[in-house]
Amino acid sequence: MPPYEKQPHTRVKRAANRAAYDEKTVHEIIDDAYVAHVGFMMDNRPFVIPMFHAREKRTLYIHASVKSRIYKTLAEGIPVCITFTHIDGLVLARSAFHHSMNYRSVVAHGFCVSVKDEAKKRAFEILTNKVALGRWDECRPITQKEMDVTGLLAFTIEAAAAKIRTGGPKDDQDDYALPIWAGVIPLERKMGVIIPDSAMTQDLDLPDSVKRIVD
Amino acid sequence: MPPYEKQPHTRVKRAANRAAYDEKTVHEIIDDAYVAHVGFMMDNRPFVIPMFHAREKRTLYIHASVKSRIYKTLAEGIPVCITFTHIDGLVLARSAFHHSMNYRSVVAHGFCVSVKDEAKKRAFEILTNKVALGRWDECRPITQKEMDVTGLLAFTIEAAAAKIRTGGPKDDQDDYALPIWAGVIPLERKMGVIIPDSAMTQDLDLPDSVKRIVD
Repeated sequence: MPPYEKQPHTRVKRAANRAAYDEKTVHEIIDDAYVAHVGFMMDNRPFVIPMFHAREKRTLYIHASVKSRIYKTLAEGIPVCITFTHIDGLVLARSAFHHSMNYRSVVAHGFCVSVKDEAKKRAFEILTNKVALGRWDECRPITQKEMDVTGLLAFTIEAAAAKIRTGGPKDDQDDYALPIWAGVIPLERKMGVIIPDSAMTQDLDLPDSVKRIVD
Repeated sequence: MPPYEKQPHTRVKRAANRAAYDEKTVHEIIDDAYVAHVGFMMDNRPFVIPMFHAREKRTLYIHASVKSRIYKTLAEGIPVCITFTHIDGLVLARSAFHHSMNYRSVVAHGFCVSVKDEAKKRAFEILTNKVALGRWDECRPITQKEMDVTGLLAFTIEAAAAKIRTGGPKDDQDDYALPIWAGVIPLERKMGVIIPDSAMTQDLDLPDSVKRIVD
């Protein structure tokens, strides 16, 4: 696939050397995130709502109660911006000015459509398997009522830009000789110790979906 | 201080039992986040831009190049929504429907004003000390030119709502007897091993600001 098109509203202008538009870079950042920050206008105000998501090609699936204002508003097909951010480190420079963060982000623009019937069921499968790969097949099957009360939206990424910073501080040339410590404090996401539900009535082994994450 | 006022656009309607409006809860979630997802309209499109931030009482400081579109647009005083999210765990239920995340989020609404002169310098100090407490005093002092090229915005939180989910899965009563493993996979943010800048010309001890984080 070609890279995402640089449109006037998505082309990175500041620190453009940190930008990327290729699918691989954009999709890896999206897939590594559990939360999508979904931005849109409602009643003449901007809203940024954190939502779970799962990606398939250039489509992002999100869900909300069919009765919610968010679902009804997004299903109208208004412009939507969805942003994903990972903070990978604190960058301490010799000057306050050059302090920074190491990060990976994607800003995506597009529109949502409501998904129904079999496509809706498939989207639920994709969302559930984003929590833990293979989880859908381990679960009690979804019911028609559960499908009906949950609104499922497909957001097509019309344009997207990734922005990435890595590495150490970049100081002014004259500042390197100063006796000031500089460096990076990396930040990482770690899994904690798994907490089996105390309400389990049987002694059950960890399922494959969880084993895959833990191993 | 009283809690943040529940306004029609900020009152949590879905899973309202997870909502909180008191300053302590709202501010702790904000302070624990390195990234603010800043939402606003520009050229008739919604944007969600990840930005560094630091809080002082009910004010959030953010910064951007004075030449950037974002700075110029936000400085006009348009409505802004800033959202903070921590994903604390993956919640695996017996049904796909009841899968969830443990999370802490704040959605804040307000407006930005541009900050100048001494107040601007103080805001830079607060921002730098958010990277690492005490860092401002360790740095080479900021110059007037650095101050001039950086736009500093103060966002006043006019209304805010926190939303928090903790604990294990909540399944349908009939599902608890099923032989399906359920539980929580906690997610945590960890500091990695500190990376001193290879360009340091002297053998310098870790500064107090970094020691405070590491210890």
